[in-house]
Amino acid sequence: MISAVDVIRAKRDRERLTDEQIDWVVAAYTRGDVADEQMAALAMAILLNGMDPGEVARWTAAMIDSGERLALPDVGRPLVDKHSTGGVGDKITLPLAPLVAACGAAVPQLSGRGLGHTGGTLDKLESIPGWRAELSLDEIAAQLADVGAVICATTPTLAPADRKLYALRDVTGTVESIPLIASSIMSKKIAEGTDGLVLDVKSGSGAFMKTAEQARELAAAMVDIGTAHGLRTTAVLTDMSVPLGRAVGNALEVAESVEVLRGGGPPDVVTLTVVLAEEMLALAGIDADPAKVLASGAAYPVWEAMIAAQGGDPSAPLPVATHVEELRAERAGMIGRCDALAVGLAAWRLGAGRARKEHAVQAAAGVRLLVGLGDTVEAGQPLLELHTDTPDAVPGALAALDGGVVVVDGPAPWRPALIGDTLRP
Amino acid sequence: MISAVDVIRAKRDRERLTDEQIDWVVAAYTRGDVADEQMAALAMAILLNGMDPGEVARWTAAMIDSGERLALPDVGRPLVDKHSTGGVGDKITLPLAPLVAACGAAVPQLSGRGLGHTGGTLDKLESIPGWRAELSLDEIAAQLADVGAVICATTPTLAPADRKLYALRDVTGTVESIPLIASSIMSKKIAEGTDGLVLDVKSGSGAFMKTAEQARELAAAMVDIGTAHGLRTTAVLTDMSVPLGRAVGNALEVAESVEVLRGGGPPDVVTLTVVLAEEMLALAGIDADPAKVLASGAAYPVWEAMIAAQGGDPSAPLPVATHVEELRAERAGMIGRCDALAVGLAAWRLGAGRARKEHAVQAAAGVRLLVGLGDTVEAGQPLLELHTDTPDAVPGALAALDGGVVVVDGPAPWRPALIGDTLRP
Repeated sequence: MISAVDVIRAKRDRERLTDEQIDWVVAAYTRGDVADEQMAALAMAILLNGMDPGEVARWTAAMIDSGERLALPDVGRPLVDKHSTGGVGDKITLPLAPLVAACGAAVPQLSGRGLGHTGGTLDKLESIPGWRAELSLDEIAAQLADVGAVICATTPTLAPADRKLYALRDVTGTVESIPLIASSIMSKKIAEGTDGLVLDVKSGSGAFMKTAEQARELAAAMVDIGTAHGLRTTAVLTDMSVPLGRAVGNALEVAESVEVLRGGGPPDVVTLTVVLAEEMLALAGIDADPAKVLASGAAYPVWEAMIAAQGGDPSAPLPVATHVEELRAERAGMIGRCDALAVGLAAWRLGAGRARKEHAVQAAAGVRLLVGLGDTVEAGQPLLELHTDTPDAVPGALAALDGGVVVVDGPAPWRPALIGDTLRP
Repeated sequence: MISAVDVIRAKRDRERLTDEQIDWVVAAYTRGDVADEQMAALAMAILLNGMDPGEVARWTAAMIDSGERLALPDVGRPLVDKHSTGGVGDKITLPLAPLVAACGAAVPQLSGRGLGHTGGTLDKLESIPGWRAELSLDEIAAQLADVGAVICATTPTLAPADRKLYALRDVTGTVESIPLIASSIMSKKIAEGTDGLVLDVKSGSGAFMKTAEQARELAAAMVDIGTAHGLRTTAVLTDMSVPLGRAVGNALEVAESVEVLRGGGPPDVVTLTVVLAEEMLALAGIDADPAKVLASGAAYPVWEAMIAAQGGDPSAPLPVATHVEELRAERAGMIGRCDALAVGLAAWRLGAGRARKEHAVQAAAGVRLLVGLGDTVEAGQPLLELHTDTPDAVPGALAALDGGVVVVDGPAPWRPALIGDTLRP
């Protein structure tokens, strides 16, 4: 007979959890036979004492088995999925899904809403008039067959143990555990039943992982889980010390994504979109040149079809903020710092993000950067725009930016490479 | 603003908790503003990352402040208290309180009921016909002034945070933390408002602390807390690898205590009673020879008065089990092992202890040892008696004793000294 206290004590005392212990505790927690306080103690013991790759793989399997697996019918193309650990201005899913579909794969992106300073993909798309996030399984399958790309809300029947455990970890100081983060992400992605998965694992001030070492550890843990479950998984390590692109905020990021899909847009957004597309197409076994496809604008019609299939009007004007304020350079010099966290917090305070799950976001709020790291500026030159429907929020946003966007004399600032190593299965 | 997650994260990340954090989290947990799952995560972080003596002293203060302090009026004698960490056959409180009272101090022993294989002092006394554990504060004060000794139930108004936290630790695998054990014991003892405290800190198979090193660490932590709170505290390290005395079980231990109070009884019970009395009298500043007082039988009338004051009939026959079974030696030889845990579990299964708080205990159940460690025995000689009102329990008790009480050829078994070091303030 397994008991919750025995499982907690084992991990507390640095023992390896057995498969039976893991299966039991995850299932019993999901059905309520293991209490929240017991799982909280176990989560803290896991955070402090760790789990080995075998334990993490089994923990992930138990979370998958707590719910359904998405049973997508054959849609006539290989299924390939992407997940980002999240960052400031990270709208890559928006151009990426249509691009990879345009190259011949099917991309089912089950996504979430944002919490805190990193935006959620669904929040961004919901700034498009008429677009809806909730689709049935039949609608997802039909859209994958017709359009090749779908970005929609995840369903509560996938990995319910993860949903319950994540909410618990959030209030018990047990979020920052690599085994628990890795199994949380991977349980949902494996339950979605994709054929290949590309992970964008970010590090830097605007990311959840602050250092490249932590990001590498998380990436390796997730590739290991994918491999253990027979899911071909590639992880790309990327930088999130400065915002991605020039737009941070829901409608602002949709507009920037459309620029990219039309063959323009900021070079860093283009580069990351292409790199991730290449990895996804490699997993799908499709020989295509996504850089060329993107530059040609050939992915844009797929975007239009994808938005229209979910009730959105891709040609409708996007919401515009009632209040736009500029931040200007106090002196001449060079942009020596453009910190992702500072910009992310500013956008959040302007209304682009939510502090609690039940809050709404402002579609038009956010930050538009007019200059980038290393750019030369004149005194009085506008550096960025603050967009909001609630002007009361501006002082808080300016406070967040204080020291985060800085003009210096030199030397030219150092920035980590946007694209770091790639970990393949 | 302090938040539960911030406090948990601080301890998780091996930071020292501030006084403000400790005060806040204990008070907020007591009133329900910190949830059980949050306190469970914090308790696990404390168990794994520790607390320094200053944190432990403050944690104890916060638990005391969660309730009332017992305000005993002046009873005309110095108040001195004793606490044992618990063991098999540990009935020392029963002869000790009347003995120390007979020597001139006042002994208020607020006690609990047993859980698991170590008996509770109240369970033992409740085997005396008519005796009641629940006294009002006025009754306690009057009895201390008149008799000098009172053993009664603790009140729920003392350190309610500890009561709540202990129940939580019990189900979350977070009992075995020296800072949390030390603060739990000391918060209740300090709230009782005694002038001096002697701790009997046991180690060995039948004790909560399995090694002498753990016991010493716990003892030192408790003496530190007492010192920090201005309570003169002495800790005596004692052995609990074999049962204390020959009787294990409620009425059986009362009978053995009466033997000791009449000047007889097993030498180990007499020795430990005298040693603890000496330490208590030293703290009370009373110059007396408790060994002589005990041997003279002069403590027995105090026992009679103490029992009678709480409604008990000290001359009434004690309950006798309906079923008594002997365990006999299978061969001639020497008692090479008489394990405290094995005997404690056997007594528990016979009905002397409870598995859950709401269970009742059998007054007459338990084990009577007829031989001791190192004694020479003949084949077929009775080694011990099993007493119970539920004969179905006998096979389980015998299973617990298997390998725990063993006849060997030699050599003479090693046993740690009954009395180890003494830690004084």
